[in-house]
Amino acid sequence: MSHIAVFPGSFDPVTKGHESVVRRVLPLFDKIIVALGSNSAKGNMFPLEKRKQWLEQTFAGISQVQVEAYSGLTVDFCRQKGAKYIVRGIRTPGDYEYESNVALMNRAMGPEIETIFMLTLPEHTAISSSIVRDIVQHGGDASPFIPKGIHVSSGK
Amino acid sequence: MSHIAVFPGSFDPVTKGHESVVRRVLPLFDKIIVALGSNSAKGNMFPLEKRKQWLEQTFAGISQVQVEAYSGLTVDFCRQKGAKYIVRGIRTPGDYEYESNVALMNRAMGPEIETIFMLTLPEHTAISSSIVRDIVQHGGDASPFIPKGIHVSSGK
Amino acid sequence: MSHIAVFPGSFDPVTKGHESVVRRVLPLFDKIIVALGSNSAKGNMFPLEKRKQWLEQTFAGISQVQVEAYSGLTVDFCRQKGAKYIVRGIRTPGDYEYESNVALMNRAMGPEIETIFMLTLPEHTAISSSIVRDIVQHGGDASPFIPKGIHVSSGK
Amino acid sequence: MSHIAVFPGSFDPVTKGHESVVRRVLPLFDKIIVALGSNSAKGNMFPLEKRKQWLEQTFAGISQVQVEAYSGLTVDFCRQKGAKYIVRGIRTPGDYEYESNVALMNRAMGPEIETIFMLTLPEHTAISSSIVRDIVQHGGDASPFIPKGIHVSSGK
Amino acid sequence: MSHIAVFPGSFDPVTKGHESVVRRVLPLFDKIIVALGSNSAKGNMFPLEKRKQWLEQTFAGISQVQVEAYSGLTVDFCRQKGAKYIVRGIRTPGDYEYESNVALMNRAMGPEIETIFMLTLPEHTAISSSIVRDIVQHGGDASPFIPKGIHVSSGK
Amino acid sequence: MSHIAVFPGSFDPVTKGHESVVRRVLPLFDKIIVALGSNSAKGNMFPLEKRKQWLEQTFAGISQVQVEAYSGLTVDFCRQKGAKYIVRGIRTPGDYEYESNVALMNRAMGPEIETIFMLTLPEHTAISSSIVRDIVQHGGDASPFIPKGIHVSSGK
Repeated sequence: MSHIAVFPGSFDPVTKGHESVVRRVLPLFDKIIVALGSNSAKGNMFPLEKRKQWLEQTFAGISQVQVEAYSGLTVDFCRQKGAKYIVRGIRTPGDYEYESNVALMNRAMGPEIETIFMLTLPEHTAISSSIVRDIVQHGGDASPFIPKGIHVSSGK
Repeated sequence: MSHIAVFPGSFDPVTKGHESVVRRVLPLFDKIIVALGSNSAKGNMFPLEKRKQWLEQTFAGISQVQVEAYSGLTVDFCRQKGAKYIVRGIRTPGDYEYESNVALMNRAMGPEIETIFMLTLPEHTAISSSIVRDIVQHGGDASPFIPKGIHVSSGK
Repeated sequence: MSHIAVFPGSFDPVTKGHESVVRRVLPLFDKIIVALGSNSAKGNMFPLEKRKQWLEQTFAGISQVQVEAYSGLTVDFCRQKGAKYIVRGIRTPGDYEYESNVALMNRAMGPEIETIFMLTLPEHTAISSSIVRDIVQHGGDASPFIPKGIHVSSGK
Repeated sequence: MSHIAVFPGSFDPVTKGHESVVRRVLPLFDKIIVALGSNSAKGNMFPLEKRKQWLEQTFAGISQVQVEAYSGLTVDFCRQKGAKYIVRGIRTPGDYEYESNVALMNRAMGPEIETIFMLTLPEHTAISSSIVRDIVQHGGDASPFIPKGIHVSSGK
Repeated sequence: MSHIAVFPGSFDPVTKGHESVVRRVLPLFDKIIVALGSNSAKGNMFPLEKRKQWLEQTFAGISQVQVEAYSGLTVDFCRQKGAKYIVRGIRTPGDYEYESNVALMNRAMGPEIETIFMLTLPEHTAISSSIVRDIVQHGGDASPFIPKGIHVSSGK
Repeated sequence: MSHIAVFPGSFDPVTKGHESVVRRVLPLFDKIIVALGSNSAKGNMFPLEKRKQWLEQTFAGISQVQVEAYSGLTVDFCRQKGAKYIVRGIRTPGDYEYESNVALMNRAMGPEIETIFMLTLPEHTAISSSIVRDIVQHGGDASPFIPKGIHVSSGK
């Protein structure tokens, strides 16, 4: 049986923190699907196509990582892909609070799917997509916080 | 003197967690008023009438529980109803953080009104109205999380 | 049916925070038993007799409040006394963390007994028994933090 | 070298908590610039001009305090003003969570600028701008929570 | 390359929560070493031999799980065993706080070893070894909280 | 008027985190007194003399920093030294919880003395004295976590 994990998020935009979590947990899985939530409701800053392209660029060299957009419930997407694990990174206790709620609810809806967590590295603690958006909106330089080779700007 | 409590919320929609807290604290009071906030600003998913009807259905068999819509400050509503206690359920530390702030502010505005808290049951920890809305919006089945006999769907 | 609550603790020593919580929740009950844990293991600063005397002094004028020492599980004591509610005060999120664990465990062992929580008043947030002990040990004056008329000193 | 601090915020509206933090940290600095964020995105309740006027009124008698609107990154504003310190007040652990993230990110972008924190006074713990807005929107009296002499109403 | 994980703890005593975490994460690894800390300093309630025997009994039927006592740093034990992952369960935000500190420190000392976390199931949230010890010390029945077939009593 | 701050602790032992906080806040003060608590009760791992010597070594080159042992209440020590500020570093939300309690209590006993907080640097988040003691006790190498030139070992 092959081990498949889903790493879900809105990646608005992808950060060095996301990249690092995927790389660190990779040895445990045969495939990690970076699952880009495409629900229109949430009001993302960057369009789906852009976010997807940045993810593909980030994980271009890693054949076990696959980027896919999805809509609907995460547990339904996992079932459809044969994934038994959801992977999430945690930066802060506030993250933990939120993530543990989502994990409990996912468990209630899909008890056969387990969520596993990794801490982001200390140097990535301050890096969230929302703070990156903040920097971009204020005209700051976000490049130290996003994967190498990716250019994010508010004009995009 | 009769003991009256107010159990305020937006109940968008009512959950099994809400129902359970009311039932468990009921023996302490002669009457519990489930007070449905009708402030338009908040942007609820379900219309006031629907939310009220679900609450009435939930507590249909319990004569000491009364459902009322209200607007304005909660402490003013308590005074108008002769309620000396506000009851709130707490699911998580994040809830606690939010609820303790509201309780402190209510106390500053109405020092004669006390807020008492109950923990939701472990099996209800993951159930919040916002997560139920999330499930409904993604086309999932929310029925395990809301009171028996109530049907919530995004088409409503 | 009469409503009885148990307010358990080690009261090492009783503080203004304890006193205030009992007074504020009192209208809801016919009797509140301030239950002084007498387990020897914990290493209290003040002897049981002293702690009991201070509690009796604190609640001397209130006939519905009764002070009793107990050992064994709190839920067993509740059953023995016919109490259906445990009352606890919460000062801080750290308190909440601890108290919610104890409440969950008590529920697992005595599902018919509910725990209800009240927040301590803002002016009592900083007052815990352990900080009072700290002040006493360092030769400070603890009188602003303990009930009127009670004298606590390390020489006791 | 003169010590300059920036006290940034949206002050929507200024509260007694803000006022108190500035007064208490003032002795450490030659000048404190109360920096009013003018970013349009955030959706403030009160217009920039009103918020600025209230701040000026609040600190009218204190020559070392200066009120300025700014846009862009806070660290850029600090550099432009020669400020080596950012000052922030913390009311609750939730505040701490948020503030520590912002401070880490500011450090990443401006390592020469330090953020220092003060706790708000216990009597100000419940007072946040968002709760004041809530009170105003519900027709309550916010005057106990904002600096003396300032009148905030929803009709403004 | 085979995937080996270490699940370290003092297991004083093992609980249903421990058992469940190991079973749920098991599919990801070829071997999980339940690593029983034998440091004398900590003052455990139950002797090492007893704790080890209970662990062996708990995981008797699962050939991929191996129980070993160890002393010294956890990262050194991992290296010695060829384990690239440490697994830990999290019950509460307080647990998270503690566990994230330990994980950061382990990372500082062994950057090639990753820690992954799983949430305990909602029904196990209240079950910690320290609460089980409490129940045992007060003469309560701890059997609902520990793995089937294990008998823990204070007389042991 | 000269600005004096007290940086209190048990420094058992001093860490790179302590050192960094003092250096970063130094520009705001004319003198910082590193105040080493000498209360015997607490059960420190290293003797007072050793801890004092390590502190003196750490701050040897900085004339504005002075190391002193003290007993009794911290606010009394501040008064005796003419210090109007207490400085504390915060690593984690758990630290914050503890520190905010102590600061509130110090304020209750010495309202003229303010406590200011700084976050430790991200790379120091995992470094606490207790974790350093843990490493030392397990025979690990603590040198990356303590100030340069200081040698801590369990044989000391």
